[in-house]
Amino acid sequence: LRQTVQNIVLASRPHGHITADNWRLTETAPEALQEGSVRVRVQYVSLDPAMRGWMNEGKSYLPPVQLGAPMRALALGCITETKAPGLSVGTYVTGGLGVRTEACVPAQEVAALVPGADVPLTHHLSVLGMPALTAYFGLFEVGQAKKGDTVVVSGAAGTVGLVVGQIAKARGCRVVGIAGGLQKCQHIENLGFDAAIDYKKEDVLQRLGDHCPTGIDVYFDNVGGDVLDAALAHLARNARVALCGAITQYNETSVRGPSNYLSLLINRARMQGFIVFDYMERYPEALEHLTAWLKAGKLKMQEHVMQGIENFPHAVTRMFEGKHIGKLLLKID
Amino acid sequence: LRQTVQNIVLASRPHGHITADNWRLTETAPEALQEGSVRVRVQYVSLDPAMRGWMNEGKSYLPPVQLGAPMRALALGCITETKAPGLSVGTYVTGGLGVRTEACVPAQEVAALVPGADVPLTHHLSVLGMPALTAYFGLFEVGQAKKGDTVVVSGAAGTVGLVVGQIAKARGCRVVGIAGGLQKCQHIENLGFDAAIDYKKEDVLQRLGDHCPTGIDVYFDNVGGDVLDAALAHLARNARVALCGAITQYNETSVRGPSNYLSLLINRARMQGFIVFDYMERYPEALEHLTAWLKAGKLKMQEHVMQGIENFPHAVTRMFEGKHIGKLLLKID
Repeated sequence: LRQTVQNIVLASRPHGHITADNWRLTETAPEALQEGSVRVRVQYVSLDPAMRGWMNEGKSYLPPVQLGAPMRALALGCITETKAPGLSVGTYVTGGLGVRTEACVPAQEVAALVPGADVPLTHHLSVLGMPALTAYFGLFEVGQAKKGDTVVVSGAAGTVGLVVGQIAKARGCRVVGIAGGLQKCQHIENLGFDAAIDYKKEDVLQRLGDHCPTGIDVYFDNVGGDVLDAALAHLARNARVALCGAITQYNETSVRGPSNYLSLLINRARMQGFIVFDYMERYPEALEHLTAWLKAGKLKMQEHVMQGIENFPHAVTRMFEGKHIGKLLLKID
Repeated sequence: LRQTVQNIVLASRPHGHITADNWRLTETAPEALQEGSVRVRVQYVSLDPAMRGWMNEGKSYLPPVQLGAPMRALALGCITETKAPGLSVGTYVTGGLGVRTEACVPAQEVAALVPGADVPLTHHLSVLGMPALTAYFGLFEVGQAKKGDTVVVSGAAGTVGLVVGQIAKARGCRVVGIAGGLQKCQHIENLGFDAAIDYKKEDVLQRLGDHCPTGIDVYFDNVGGDVLDAALAHLARNARVALCGAITQYNETSVRGPSNYLSLLINRARMQGFIVFDYMERYPEALEHLTAWLKAGKLKMQEHVMQGIENFPHAVTRMFEGKHIGKLLLKID
């Protein structure tokens, strides 16, 4: 029997970069389980760039994590006790369980994994998880990508970017990925991207011109900053820019706006933000496509699993350093 | 018989602000009239902020005006000679005639005024002209404004802005206008705008919050810069930003991007540029609505007519100084 619950709580809000003293490891007594809720033993926590935003005070698409509360995180675990009809002990679920060894959450806040899906558990936090759903709706709904389009994705070796590029290829688009470093660029080329641009070594503005001679039809932005500006400069007529994130800006104390935004005017183009949660009702449709691409070998994902809840601060730092390729996870159990 | 044609030609390209030596007044012999073209005696030239962009070298939605060529301008005139079937001498036409006393242009580049429309000639360059069509398609197509929406328009006392605000009111929107100076603000309030913000005296960011308690559903941007940033900070969920222009940025040598662009992400909002020429096939539909609102007294426009082609440089300066309210025209004849 588990005596205490370990939690990583938000000890202070970062100014700029996250530091070790923004976190504190606490031990608490297990909560009492409410009617309609389940107790979940957390097994894997997903590391996501969005975490940086959740740490800020002030209005966003979700309320900020409160000081002293467990850090918000998407996670996967197994039900150990249930007071919710239809969710039985032993069922695996995903949801916003938080960075803790055990979570008691209302049934409607978790999704049960379909039994017999025959994929590794961790895939439900990566290639069949929120990052993949984000890629799917951003690319096909917001970006309206269709066969023959030139698609450019930044943060191309991140979880979302890797899915964007691969499913765009699966739909018949030309895909150019922007990533940092030779290893990442080689990785995305091996996955079938038509071209890779190394923003650390190459002139992104010029290379986008080389690789997109008819302009960019869909730009999927994960990074903001100079790369967004370079992409705006190469938009095709009627282009769509899907704003998914701005990882270069999250740790900045002031955001720099895209000075080439008037390219939207000249090219009758649009830039649109989205939040994957808005598409919840259509997750099953997306998962059907993603699973089919996965099984057909068109969608691959490296996963990096770090160990131990106490290593969460290191895992966050590693994610923002951007040295890994693919999906970063923390195994709790 | 007219012996010579007077032209205002582009003598040099401006760096930043337009100066008097960017223009030269020339006299040329009348052109020979080609088959399929008409000779037009130019009577009114429209002064438009877009002129600043046309003077720049480099790719835009129209080719740049060539050095030594007559300045591009929307204008209205009367056919004095015709080699085009269906266009007879004495017919009034509008089109990109340029800043000159006489223009020979292909028939497809002009639009004949509907006889008996029973409105002053100058209205065809203002409240029934390109600025009004720009307002119509930007507001209702790009902005998707509908009854009950909160609409904010900048440059609200400019030609486009005045039309945006009035036709938004006519469709049942709440309208907040942003303009510079007490006189302009009083003018738009007299026209029925629900509120006016004086960006020269008031804190636009704070006043938008006061006047748009549920956020901005449609922001029609004519100015860019700080005002665009303030509007982005107050977007409602699923808001639409129609980018029509950026008059604060046209005379700058480097454009400042909107640092609040991540509000698009949080609010699942979009920012979209447009060019009125893309809606050419639907001009008749728009003109029908605009004419009806005009006749119903729901659409009004002050027009300021300056005299003489030689005063074109002064007229341009006056337009960018923004001291007039409404539409600025230059009478050529």
